[in-house]
Amino acid sequence: MKRIDLNCDLGESFGAWRMGDDDALLALISSASIACGFHAGDPDIMQYTVAQAMARGVAIGAHVSLPDLQGFGRREMRVTPAEVHAMTLYQIGALHAFTQAAGTRLAHVKPHGALYNMAARDTALAEAIARAVQQFDPELRLFGLANSALIDSARAIGLPVAAEAFADRRYCANGSLQPRGESGAVIEDVAQATTQAIGIAQDNSVAATDGSRLSLHADTLCLHGDGAHALTFASQLREALQAAGLRIAAPGAV
Amino acid sequence: MKRIDLNCDLGESFGAWRMGDDDALLALISSASIACGFHAGDPDIMQYTVAQAMARGVAIGAHVSLPDLQGFGRREMRVTPAEVHAMTLYQIGALHAFTQAAGTRLAHVKPHGALYNMAARDTALAEAIARAVQQFDPELRLFGLANSALIDSARAIGLPVAAEAFADRRYCANGSLQPRGESGAVIEDVAQATTQAIGIAQDNSVAATDGSRLSLHADTLCLHGDGAHALTFASQLREALQAAGLRIAAPGAV
Amino acid sequence: MKRIDLNCDLGESFGAWRMGDDDALLALISSASIACGFHAGDPDIMQYTVAQAMARGVAIGAHVSLPDLQGFGRREMRVTPAEVHAMTLYQIGALHAFTQAAGTRLAHVKPHGALYNMAARDTALAEAIARAVQQFDPELRLFGLANSALIDSARAIGLPVAAEAFADRRYCANGSLQPRGESGAVIEDVAQATTQAIGIAQDNSVAATDGSRLSLHADTLCLHGDGAHALTFASQLREALQAAGLRIAAPGAV
Amino acid sequence: MKRIDLNCDLGESFGAWRMGDDDALLALISSASIACGFHAGDPDIMQYTVAQAMARGVAIGAHVSLPDLQGFGRREMRVTPAEVHAMTLYQIGALHAFTQAAGTRLAHVKPHGALYNMAARDTALAEAIARAVQQFDPELRLFGLANSALIDSARAIGLPVAAEAFADRRYCANGSLQPRGESGAVIEDVAQATTQAIGIAQDNSVAATDGSRLSLHADTLCLHGDGAHALTFASQLREALQAAGLRIAAPGAV
Repeated sequence: MKRIDLNCDLGESFGAWRMGDDDALLALISSASIACGFHAGDPDIMQYTVAQAMARGVAIGAHVSLPDLQGFGRREMRVTPAEVHAMTLYQIGALHAFTQAAGTRLAHVKPHGALYNMAARDTALAEAIARAVQQFDPELRLFGLANSALIDSARAIGLPVAAEAFADRRYCANGSLQPRGESGAVIEDVAQATTQAIGIAQDNSVAATDGSRLSLHADTLCLHGDGAHALTFASQLREALQAAGLRIAAPGAV
Repeated sequence: MKRIDLNCDLGESFGAWRMGDDDALLALISSASIACGFHAGDPDIMQYTVAQAMARGVAIGAHVSLPDLQGFGRREMRVTPAEVHAMTLYQIGALHAFTQAAGTRLAHVKPHGALYNMAARDTALAEAIARAVQQFDPELRLFGLANSALIDSARAIGLPVAAEAFADRRYCANGSLQPRGESGAVIEDVAQATTQAIGIAQDNSVAATDGSRLSLHADTLCLHGDGAHALTFASQLREALQAAGLRIAAPGAV
Repeated sequence: MKRIDLNCDLGESFGAWRMGDDDALLALISSASIACGFHAGDPDIMQYTVAQAMARGVAIGAHVSLPDLQGFGRREMRVTPAEVHAMTLYQIGALHAFTQAAGTRLAHVKPHGALYNMAARDTALAEAIARAVQQFDPELRLFGLANSALIDSARAIGLPVAAEAFADRRYCANGSLQPRGESGAVIEDVAQATTQAIGIAQDNSVAATDGSRLSLHADTLCLHGDGAHALTFASQLREALQAAGLRIAAPGAV
Repeated sequence: MKRIDLNCDLGESFGAWRMGDDDALLALISSASIACGFHAGDPDIMQYTVAQAMARGVAIGAHVSLPDLQGFGRREMRVTPAEVHAMTLYQIGALHAFTQAAGTRLAHVKPHGALYNMAARDTALAEAIARAVQQFDPELRLFGLANSALIDSARAIGLPVAAEAFADRRYCANGSLQPRGESGAVIEDVAQATTQAIGIAQDNSVAATDGSRLSLHADTLCLHGDGAHALTFASQLREALQAAGLRIAAPGAV
């Protein structure tokens, strides 16, 4: 039976501010990437979110970010590989403390926002992240964009990976995501997105913007937690994947 | 052979700002309490300081603080035990990531500044800290003011502790430190401070402000890293303790 | 015709996080206290909120706070009068820049959360705030709890003030607010709260917890922006006050 | 009598951390660019530094930065013109509050670090800064790199400017600074730097890296506050300029 992971960003509240319907999302996903205080999250929210994910049997990952609360980690910063290495370790450790105290374990690490995009194309930053993860725990799995420098860098040092694809983003013929700014880059139609998701999960293949068929292997699909239709979309996607005979499970889960 | 630990706050630089002569201090101490980013320190500095301490054979601890960079963790804040529990875990984990990546281990946890003082007198906060440390690793040692709520709370749950005393602070007859604001509270004279340190380390006893002799058991003496005479003082104290036949070693070290 | 000001905290979003229904509240209030980045708000949100308030003819004030984003400025901190003086000036200036650029002016300053409570009882802090406001602009009006040290300190130096009362908080016979923790401290019933508001606005009098009638002069009533019923409550209160013949207007407005 | 301004970054301490010998520098410069809390500085330090500059008759400017304390404002961030506009206003206002309270006035605004470099080449960011300054006070003077987009954008809207040059940086034939990474980019020899400074101040001309003579008009020369020889260098430069018959004065000063 084929399997696919559904992951979502969680724990993105901060202090008195709430974001995302974590409770509803936990019913739909198999992996949660939890914010570590650099773009969102604080110690109280991290502890709470770890407990919720654990109670729902959802695998827990550290969602590491550039240090930019105001910009929600979405603004690229000119940081060095050494800085990225250190901030990755810091955030992994911070989240690990809560899984450790709760009696569970970290399953994965995923860079967030601008760091995710930078690590997808910049090999030096990608290697810094992969090395930090491996130094912390060589069995931790690194989540990154399929066909990216991050996945390549992790594989090169023998770190377990999960290649990530998107149900609702259009792919170019060369395997890259169509830039968000361009018209049509985001698939708004649920049926279309579901079809794309099943194609990826079942046949390792996706339709490119030029009409060609692209080979795309992915271990995990990214669900968005915010936006008006996020929950409906996630719920329909999950059902469609299961109806197509796919098992929803975290990578590496037995 | 009697032994005593000498501990000092380290890694208190932040970003472009430098503080303390960590390099010189590492030659004199047996335990380093490293700032975790809440009152000082950042991921780069934490990583660097862990490497330096490790290279010098100095035991490494997490110096956990209230979240107050501008106030250097010295301003008391009305935080709940739950908040203190979560911030303690977060900071221990963050520092642990660097010891883990460097192939060494955390030896202790010490609250910093205002949190140290609050945990010395407030049992609920003390218990929150002790519980966080134990949940992370029941073999981690908690450093706290001798005869304080923090030491009591840790002992009550079976957590290893190190009771801390000060060579250069005057003690009241009830065992508490004379408040810093009062005249004479800080011992400026090196010879007097050294005498007090040897008395504590060798005889578990110290002269109180009223002239009486106070029983005071301490496992570790706190050295100050800043101030004009910090290094001279630390160096003379270390020599005097060794000359008096004491072995300088981290608690629990073989 | 008697008049009363209705004020509310505004601009309490931060970065990607939203808080409060500012747009709806602006239709109901005469004074907006806008967060200045220390407990909430950021430059983008401050600029946006100033423009909105200006467009709706609502008077603009700086809602100055302790520096504690995670705690939303609600955790008391042991700060000195000098620190409070400087942080008050900083935040007033920051908000003033946006009113200045927009071609309008600051009308008032109000301490937020923990600072509000501290300044209500601590004369040294109250004086530091009043002095900062006066040094920036002696015509700025300081909002503070009626019968508090803050109002007294401002009056003592000739600074314009607005004494604040609450429609939905119970008063003790000595004029202080019943502590929030105590049962009955918050008036949940809208009709009761409205009656209290009209009593304050029209007769300068309020029923105390012991049944006695308390004299209470207030220039402004505080509306809460968050909570499920905040808008309904605010709307009913405004209508009731107007129906009772009161004019809703910012203090000092012509 | 020809004149030139000597400006330096001041108030770059933060909380418990000290940076720069502001006191000594104030004796040598005519304009101080004071950090506003985004890359350095805090309300206490800003207030103190304003008082010191005022007491020494040194003109005061706001040194506005990207929000990056850990990176000291030196890491470029992908910010929008709207974000830059708002953060510029915020910081100008914050510093203005202290000049206003002290009874003096802001004379200039200068972007710091990464923002300075970004505004030198990116017209949209340059215009955002120039517009913010003008909206706050059309008589404020904007400091920027000579021949940069920032100076052009300010001039285009009629904002007073001061074109900045460097005594100790090598210029390319096209008027740009030789990139710092390249060998020879920084002039270490004081005599050479002094010669360059006098050439700029007196003849509006500088030797380029290719040996050609470059026309360069500058209103202000930037002194560095940190580094081992900063003070000696600044002192010798000032004396040499005065010996060459130049008057050291802030732009616009009578």
